[in-house]
Amino acid sequence: MMNPHNSPPSRGRRRLLGRLAAGGLVASQAATASELLKPLAVAQSSRVPGAPVLEHPYGVPSPYEANVVRRSARAWPLPGAASSMTPLADLHGTLTPNGLVYERHHGGVPDIDPGQHRLAIHGLVRTPKLFTMDDLLRLPSESRIHFLECSGNTGNEWNGPSGMPVQLTHGLLSCCEWTGVRLSTLLEEVGGLTASGNTAGGGWLLAEGADAAAMTRSLPLERILDRALVVYAQNGERLRPENGYPLRLIVPGFEGNTNVKWLRRLKVVDAPLQTREETSKYTSLLANGTARQFAFEMDAKSVITRPSPGHRLTTHGYYPITGLAWSGRGTIRKVEVSTDGGATWRPARLDGAILDRALTRFQADWRWDGGAAVILSRATDSTGYVQPTRAELVAARGLNSQYHYNAIQQWRVDASGEVRNA
Amino acid sequence: MMNPHNSPPSRGRRRLLGRLAAGGLVASQAATASELLKPLAVAQSSRVPGAPVLEHPYGVPSPYEANVVRRSARAWPLPGAASSMTPLADLHGTLTPNGLVYERHHGGVPDIDPGQHRLAIHGLVRTPKLFTMDDLLRLPSESRIHFLECSGNTGNEWNGPSGMPVQLTHGLLSCCEWTGVRLSTLLEEVGGLTASGNTAGGGWLLAEGADAAAMTRSLPLERILDRALVVYAQNGERLRPENGYPLRLIVPGFEGNTNVKWLRRLKVVDAPLQTREETSKYTSLLANGTARQFAFEMDAKSVITRPSPGHRLTTHGYYPITGLAWSGRGTIRKVEVSTDGGATWRPARLDGAILDRALTRFQADWRWDGGAAVILSRATDSTGYVQPTRAELVAARGLNSQYHYNAIQQWRVDASGEVRNA
Repeated sequence: MMNPHNSPPSRGRRRLLGRLAAGGLVASQAATASELLKPLAVAQSSRVPGAPVLEHPYGVPSPYEANVVRRSARAWPLPGAASSMTPLADLHGTLTPNGLVYERHHGGVPDIDPGQHRLAIHGLVRTPKLFTMDDLLRLPSESRIHFLECSGNTGNEWNGPSGMPVQLTHGLLSCCEWTGVRLSTLLEEVGGLTASGNTAGGGWLLAEGADAAAMTRSLPLERILDRALVVYAQNGERLRPENGYPLRLIVPGFEGNTNVKWLRRLKVVDAPLQTREETSKYTSLLANGTARQFAFEMDAKSVITRPSPGHRLTTHGYYPITGLAWSGRGTIRKVEVSTDGGATWRPARLDGAILDRALTRFQADWRWDGGAAVILSRATDSTGYVQPTRAELVAARGLNSQYHYNAIQQWRVDASGEVRNA
Repeated sequence: MMNPHNSPPSRGRRRLLGRLAAGGLVASQAATASELLKPLAVAQSSRVPGAPVLEHPYGVPSPYEANVVRRSARAWPLPGAASSMTPLADLHGTLTPNGLVYERHHGGVPDIDPGQHRLAIHGLVRTPKLFTMDDLLRLPSESRIHFLECSGNTGNEWNGPSGMPVQLTHGLLSCCEWTGVRLSTLLEEVGGLTASGNTAGGGWLLAEGADAAAMTRSLPLERILDRALVVYAQNGERLRPENGYPLRLIVPGFEGNTNVKWLRRLKVVDAPLQTREETSKYTSLLANGTARQFAFEMDAKSVITRPSPGHRLTTHGYYPITGLAWSGRGTIRKVEVSTDGGATWRPARLDGAILDRALTRFQADWRWDGGAAVILSRATDSTGYVQPTRAELVAARGLNSQYHYNAIQQWRVDASGEVRNA
């Protein structure tokens, strides 16, 4: 099936760019244009032989990109129960390279020999089984692109603008192509499903990791059976150690911690087991004193990644505003952008394929006139849900929550060109 | 737009898997099943704290995957004018992680400071311009997933089965998400296009690299204007040095060398300039003594990556046959698989999104009965073109060619389970 993001540009799109071009998108290099009528000087890099092939059998980024790395927002007392964040401001497109996928560990990164690793599937099933990695590789596989977001992402904005750059406010967010076996295929293997594909006995699934935290969550089977994968590869290669090597669960759209890493056990049960990570943690205390539990889906959200805090606009003129939008409940239907603090909004272009529960790149044309501006983005997903303002979110959830902060994020552009989270 | 590869499974698909499951996809671990009724032992990896967060600010693969690296088929006399290949047998899904994207250099990998790099666009244009990297980042961008294949890929099979594994026969092949500026946007910036988006003066484009080979190719503008990109990012991050850092051309579907790396110059001209790389190299001598020149598109092709030479089947029973298919002329419409040397064929499943000029993953169910088998795959693209047999290809092109070998590839499975390129 032909995908829209690979189709030729419409004449309309061409005309749009044509009109922009008439004004000149790029600040003129006219002083040097006459030089271009003479032969170009030979590049210094053409005068010397370059580095040989296979200098790095497994390649690494350019030394000029050494600042594009994962970072933590703070020093954690227990570095094995900490997180690091994806440098969203320096990334392009929609995929996250494996070296920059965010980390969140509860007991550090275990060292697991894939030859020794086993996945146990038991509980309310006909034939409990142990699966080796080789067993899993001999099952039909499936690959899909999905985002992962920690439910604590952007939690530092609950009390208003934190002053932090987008890597530290929104960087518990990544997007990869995941490859593995459908959860439903595995449950069929152990007799946990009926012939019609429904759950046979139990309505919930306990997933447990082989890390020092034995990270454990209960998941509602009927809601995830159509899409959950038990995966061994990300972006084409085997999982990275900090992302669950050799095996993890992917529950598209659900908060990050439910995508249990270093997966060693799936138990079919009839009710949630009320584990630590779904009682004292990963629940949200509301204003009325009750707690919101099992809020699995990450609601629709968006953020402008460029320009964003740390960037500085230089010459006046054309700047594209670009960022990411996503929803744990489906696809992104629309992203709107404002450059006047939310007084007026206009639609952004959505770039590339718009995939279910995956990051979507948006872009809007903007001419910076050199004045102060406040830039914002607002996502609407395929269910019709609209990303809320901070005031709307606080009205609904109060200020006790640590999790599921998805309000519209604003960046201030000063007349100096500096961009700030304020 | 909803993408088919993210839709829930059909009941039919479920029933298919259900029927397979009835036979038992996984060799039984029944001896251990009763153990699963007792509490599971605590994993050794749960008894000790794991490695801290940010042990690698830029992540690296698991040490257990140290064999998954690029390799060369032979020792080259000039390592700066050599190639390394993607380990296709060890990869999953459709994307190639940046560290494993194949290399092909004509003068080694140049060291280019992006702050000093310039792209010149001149020739038959109204306003020649120099673009800095910052200029390019201030233009509207676009991201698309496309394969890259060297025209010399699989050339070692022209004389029959080479005995080599798939990494060395088909590994001059990778697939990434590329982000950059449309070539048409840049040509509008310099007045190289008319208001209706057609080329104003010249019909060809000379692209030159800043490497020690000053790698230079002529390209037919009207054929590439709808899709060519000048890119600065692959799979979300900036280009890797060996893949053109900081700037390269992407001409979707065209042979690899036309996707000029370390791009420093685009000149609009009225006819091809007959550079070294399109006369003495990258042309194909036919049987009648004439040469095939400017054979840009990579024709439809497919290959089984698992099982493939180097793999060994162990127990009899279910094995999925999986591999990759692609076409430089559009999308993949169909892949068929044979396990009897081509006597009979059956359709494979196409996994995930089927994107224009991108790798497509296919999969077919197979039960190995322990006998000898010959497994093959055959791709058909959206133009209706069918991947040829080796005999058909040789009849059309003779045996003098080094380039554009796209015949059906067979692997032999011995009764021992060994898989060989024979």
